[in-house]
Amino acid sequence: MTRPPASVRVEVRVELKPGVLDAEAESIEKALGLLGIASVPHVTTARVYDLEFSGVTPDEARRCADEAVERLLANPVIHRVTVSPRSG
Amino acid sequence: MTRPPASVRVEVRVELKPGVLDAEAESIEKALGLLGIASVPHVTTARVYDLEFSGVTPDEARRCADEAVERLLANPVIHRVTVSPRSG
Repeated sequence: MTRPPASVRVEVRVELKPGVLDAEAESIEKALGLLGIASVPHVTTARVYDLEFSGVTPDEARRCADEAVERLLANPVIHRVTVSPRSG
Repeated sequence: MTRPPASVRVEVRVELKPGVLDAEAESIEKALGLLGIASVPHVTTARVYDLEFSGVTPDEARRCADEAVERLLANPVIHRVTVSPRSG
């Protein structure tokens, strides 16, 4: 029997779906123009959750992350979610 | 003379420095335990800004992103920032 690794990290990236108003991104676009940094930038924002599980296999960690997304971290009506393993 | 590419994307990842209280991460840790999803997870959060610049070279885009971080997107007292180019 193989022992599970000490800890497994999974990255959950939560973005707004296309068409959903991203007020923070719009404010940043406007501010970048006003500050003279860039005239016509396009900005999108995302929230990233780095989940680190102890004493589980990568598969179990992935399942926990999927369940966390479904029950806690994202709203399927407005959010697009990417779950990916991270090394370390 | 080479023309700059149509658009250049730069990803800015803003995290809290170690030692700075991450209230959202603590709430998620507690909630994952209460929901029975994972007993002792460790959670960190980050805010990601995807900046897309038009009609500039990758070097110019990088400079714009660095200036945006300095003047708008991050607070050097509490934030750790990673700026990286993105394909597409």
